Amino acid sequence: MTTLTNVRASLPSATASAYLNAGTFGPLPTPAALAMSDHLRETHETGRIGVRGFKRWLQIEADARAAFARVIGASPDDVALTHCTTDGVNLTLSGLDWREGDEVLTGDAEHPGLLVPLAELARRKGVTVARVAIADAIDPVATLAEAMTLRTKLVAISHVLWTTGRVLPVAAIAAMARAAGALTLIDGAQAIGAVPVDVPATGSDFYTVSGQKWLCGPSGTGALYVSPTAREKLSPSMSGYSTMNSSAPGGPAPWATARRFDSGTITLTALVGATASIAWREEIGAAWALASARDRAENLRSIIAGRPGLRVAETFGAPSTIVSIAVEGRAVDRIAVALEAEGVLVRSIPGTPYVRASVGFWNDARDVERLVEGLTG
Amino acid sequence: MTTLTNVRASLPSATASAYLNAGTFGPLPTPAALAMSDHLRETHETGRIGVRGFKRWLQIEADARAAFARVIGASPDDVALTHCTTDGVNLTLSGLDWREGDEVLTGDAEHPGLLVPLAELARRKGVTVARVAIADAIDPVATLAEAMTLRTKLVAISHVLWTTGRVLPVAAIAAMARAAGALTLIDGAQAIGAVPVDVPATGSDFYTVSGQKWLCGPSGTGALYVSPTAREKLSPSMSGYSTMNSSAPGGPAPWATARRFDSGTITLTALVGATASIAWREEIGAAWALASARDRAENLRSIIAGRPGLRVAETFGAPSTIVSIAVEGRAVDRIAVALEAEGVLVRSIPGTPYVRASVGFWNDARDVERLVEGLTG
Repeated sequence: MTTLTNVRASLPSATASAYLNAGTFGPLPTPAALAMSDHLRETHETGRIGVRGFKRWLQIEADARAAFARVIGASPDDVALTHCTTDGVNLTLSGLDWREGDEVLTGDAEHPGLLVPLAELARRKGVTVARVAIADAIDPVATLAEAMTLRTKLVAISHVLWTTGRVLPVAAIAAMARAAGALTLIDGAQAIGAVPVDVPATGSDFYTVSGQKWLCGPSGTGALYVSPTAREKLSPSMSGYSTMNSSAPGGPAPWATARRFDSGTITLTALVGATASIAWREEIGAAWALASARDRAENLRSIIAGRPGLRVAETFGAPSTIVSIAVEGRAVDRIAVALEAEGVLVRSIPGTPYVRASVGFWNDARDVERLVEGLTG
Repeated sequence: MTTLTNVRASLPSATASAYLNAGTFGPLPTPAALAMSDHLRETHETGRIGVRGFKRWLQIEADARAAFARVIGASPDDVALTHCTTDGVNLTLSGLDWREGDEVLTGDAEHPGLLVPLAELARRKGVTVARVAIADAIDPVATLAEAMTLRTKLVAISHVLWTTGRVLPVAAIAAMARAAGALTLIDGAQAIGAVPVDVPATGSDFYTVSGQKWLCGPSGTGALYVSPTAREKLSPSMSGYSTMNSSAPGGPAPWATARRFDSGTITLTALVGATASIAWREEIGAAWALASARDRAENLRSIIAGRPGLRVAETFGAPSTIVSIAVEGRAVDRIAVALEAEGVLVRSIPGTPYVRASVGFWNDARDVERLVEGLTG
């Protein structure tokens, strides 16, 4: 049976401190570290070439694609392997055909991983990027719908806001966008592994995720979901040997599946780690992990609610595992540094009054206490 | 003092077999495996977040950039970190502004890592890609010069042909292209770490390399050199948080250096490995490594020359460490498989009559003998 004690025993970094920043990097579980270590040893001692090495390479990629597919509830045929959430944003924006005057709608609390590529798109292609104030909107679907025009080609927003942890109604947003003839790109960096998500059920055309955050995998891993209907609208933008099916009837051709959108070579050792992290999460139980993190985050929120001088960021009835906290009279970046000195790892969010705690399934009551003590002490 | 015995002692995979395929993946040296193992342990046990984790991340990236810069003889300011040679090709092709009718000249013996992105460019942007027969040209510079037109915007070729190992005169080609108003993109996959290269001295605008081949680093690492004059002609195509200088005066702005062209997140463990592989190569002596590989390749070539039924691919007086060999009356892919069964690791080159041996500084006389025995036995 999965217990918090068992789980924490596989996450030494999560017991070395009060680990409350999976929003940046999650704690790497022991099975993933062991799998990576084994792969490294094999590479070092035996090598990685020959028919054996080549088959191993393909198998490692197939295993990672299957693992990411399981996590997001999609077919592996709809998954491209990437290096991070931002990679998936760039693959989408570069792979679509743009006309000058096309519009993209995005939110007002998006991450640079989405905003920077959008700004570059605007600069290079004459595309208009409109930032719509949805972060604090009572009805973000209606707010976005109002901002749509005939030239809106894409709605690009986060599933979970990295600033406050608010969960946006992406299925309703995707449905609204589709009805208006627009595509949807969802930044799932703070959603996948944190809250329950069935990506195909959201109706998103493109959904991009990271392996190293809530899924606890190594850095430099991620995936881009491309829906079957969106597939033909996207061109591969990081093409090469691996994006081609060398054995296609009629000669080499781009893979018929989303594999043709794969980003450049991902270190095999990292892919092995991502697969192992995801498998370990399944072993402890994805439902257990989601419930454990949800309950712990709820617990933190209710404690904060009772403390004078502390305020939890508004999530409009749709909270995630991110708990952002404003502290009266204290600068947030100083608080984060002070907390780190006490072994409590959170981060501050620039341009907001918030210290952000990313509450994971590995956190225990003492982690939450230590955070509250640090905030009030 | 560096001796072959010492060097081989640090490369267990190169003694586990006759390791003659660095053109795919080089043997990973023990110091790199140890550095990666240490980084993995640190990530697993201590974690990778907080101010400490963030500083470590930036330092790992800076160290890898500096290491690649030393290898190619460039300033770190002219180096973008990538995942592979193909990544650098895509960053260049996607980052330039194309007009319908623009032309690219490439060679007739290029790797899919260059040809596939060029085909995609042609398909999407209406750019004409002309394949010029330079692989067996007596004077490839003149042959390319003849093919240039007023619409030629880019000359994109390999420094060392992956098929035959011929070294192309890239400095003369870059000078010719520049005089005609065109840019130059050089695929250095089979050159860097194999033959002496001073990238800025070649006058190339873009020069793309891999970490995992002749430099013996982990897979998923590489670098793109962007010359100072070419820098302003290229847009970042994989932009995000890391390609921005958050502390720029006047607010966040793309890095002023080639860092703004960095590709998506590279697993930190791999970057640590690439840096360690390069440092180890410097320790044994880059000049020693280049001379050792050159002499061993020359030795192999002269042995083959004396064997009936075997023929070394023509390199027109410009050989590299790749020795491609045609075997009378035998299918090349079968030979490669048969050699692997005997512990001799080479590869066949599709569409050519050649089995390709990539001769490294780690190969000894016995490796060469085993290959010749396998080819003649």
